[in-house]
Amino acid sequence: MTLSNNQIKLINSLHSKKGRIDNNLFLVEGEKGIRELLDSSFKIEFIVLNRKEIQSHLNFGETPIYYESESNVIKYSSLTTNEYGFAIVHSKIFALNDFSFTLGYTVVLDGIRDPGNLGTILRICDWYGINQLVCSMDTTEYYNSKVISASMGSFHRIKFLYVDLPEFLDQFSGIPMIGASLDGKNVHEYEFPSNGFIVFGNESEGIRSQVKGALTDLVKIPSWGKAESLNVGISAGVILDNIKRQY
Amino acid sequence: MTLSNNQIKLINSLHSKKGRIDNNLFLVEGEKGIRELLDSSFKIEFIVLNRKEIQSHLNFGETPIYYESESNVIKYSSLTTNEYGFAIVHSKIFALNDFSFTLGYTVVLDGIRDPGNLGTILRICDWYGINQLVCSMDTTEYYNSKVISASMGSFHRIKFLYVDLPEFLDQFSGIPMIGASLDGKNVHEYEFPSNGFIVFGNESEGIRSQVKGALTDLVKIPSWGKAESLNVGISAGVILDNIKRQY
Repeated sequence: MTLSNNQIKLINSLHSKKGRIDNNLFLVEGEKGIRELLDSSFKIEFIVLNRKEIQSHLNFGETPIYYESESNVIKYSSLTTNEYGFAIVHSKIFALNDFSFTLGYTVVLDGIRDPGNLGTILRICDWYGINQLVCSMDTTEYYNSKVISASMGSFHRIKFLYVDLPEFLDQFSGIPMIGASLDGKNVHEYEFPSNGFIVFGNESEGIRSQVKGALTDLVKIPSWGKAESLNVGISAGVILDNIKRQY
Repeated sequence: MTLSNNQIKLINSLHSKKGRIDNNLFLVEGEKGIRELLDSSFKIEFIVLNRKEIQSHLNFGETPIYYESESNVIKYSSLTTNEYGFAIVHSKIFALNDFSFTLGYTVVLDGIRDPGNLGTILRICDWYGINQLVCSMDTTEYYNSKVISASMGSFHRIKFLYVDLPEFLDQFSGIPMIGASLDGKNVHEYEFPSNGFIVFGNESEGIRSQVKGALTDLVKIPSWGKAESLNVGISAGVILDNIKRQY
């Protein structure tokens, strides 16, 4: 089967946030993502593969598969490097009562703008066994293809909420809220509580003051050199490693 | 002053590895990089700035400055996001006797291909006070603009060598050589020696067997979740953090 014009139009619309929201669909691109997807509870609308992959050993079950030329796959992809194929997938939206904040850690993001950073953070969360994410409204969209791609398949194991962050934190005062900040306490010497929120801020501004005011503590990764800061993905990796080594 | 045609030709040539090597020059782009550069021992040939920056508070000393329109700065840049300006800078090449391996750690890279990853690793090294880097011949070129840019100015505090890695390691047997690998020992429980090489491998293959065979030990970041791996930049951050917390 090859794609109809309406399907091609639908795929193209999913390159934009508006199209993803209007259609309640998103793209999962590349072999690793599709392989993980088939293992998940996400509902797949259909899959488009490079004709070369007709012998694929993946088990697609009942999912409709369309085969296209490599040049078409590249043309319809939203990523520049995808020649394998992509899936059209139904978005999931989570509600507050899917979450529990009394056990373990929830990662909170205050204004992460770069989709690559968000995807990397999903992969890190999944490595360290953290499956709850709370994002400020201006954090980049979860179902952006670059987020999904950078997560290397981890996107389907994380629950997420987009909220008014100061209001949200206000609602949960009583739960430890620890932020990563250059003026925080040395994370190597810090005794983390057994549960709470761990907050990472915007790429250039860090955690904004309205959020920072709500936090119970701040931690910093100690430095031995002269770099002014670390990338937020690196900070998240190092700080989650410091939390998990204690539990 | 505005740029001559020959200067524009020279700048364009520095977008390619061949041009950088032939001219022994490279580009430093964006404000943060230029600010750090002015603070370094690198010799600057000239600087090109967006005309809007004519009131810049940076101290350029004797360096010739050319002002160009924003559209020209974007046109001559090798990065898509640079509207500030760029510097044309003389490359430095280091020799083996600039290095000492008996004190502290040297980061060793076996086939890192992504310039963003190399730049991020430079920034991490600089954060953790590690200023020696040894790269396999097929590691991406140090003076690639994306490396320089992702290093956020840290590039000028790191000495680097490109070597035949198996041969190089052979030469220094006796110095501890520890690799990051999914089949290594738990890095949270590992006692690091006080000096040595810490080796990170290629984005998809990891450390290649010829190099792995030379290593004295392997460490792994423990996982609590289901992600198959971490990005090499994240691994480097977490493992250097585990080394430095011991010293």
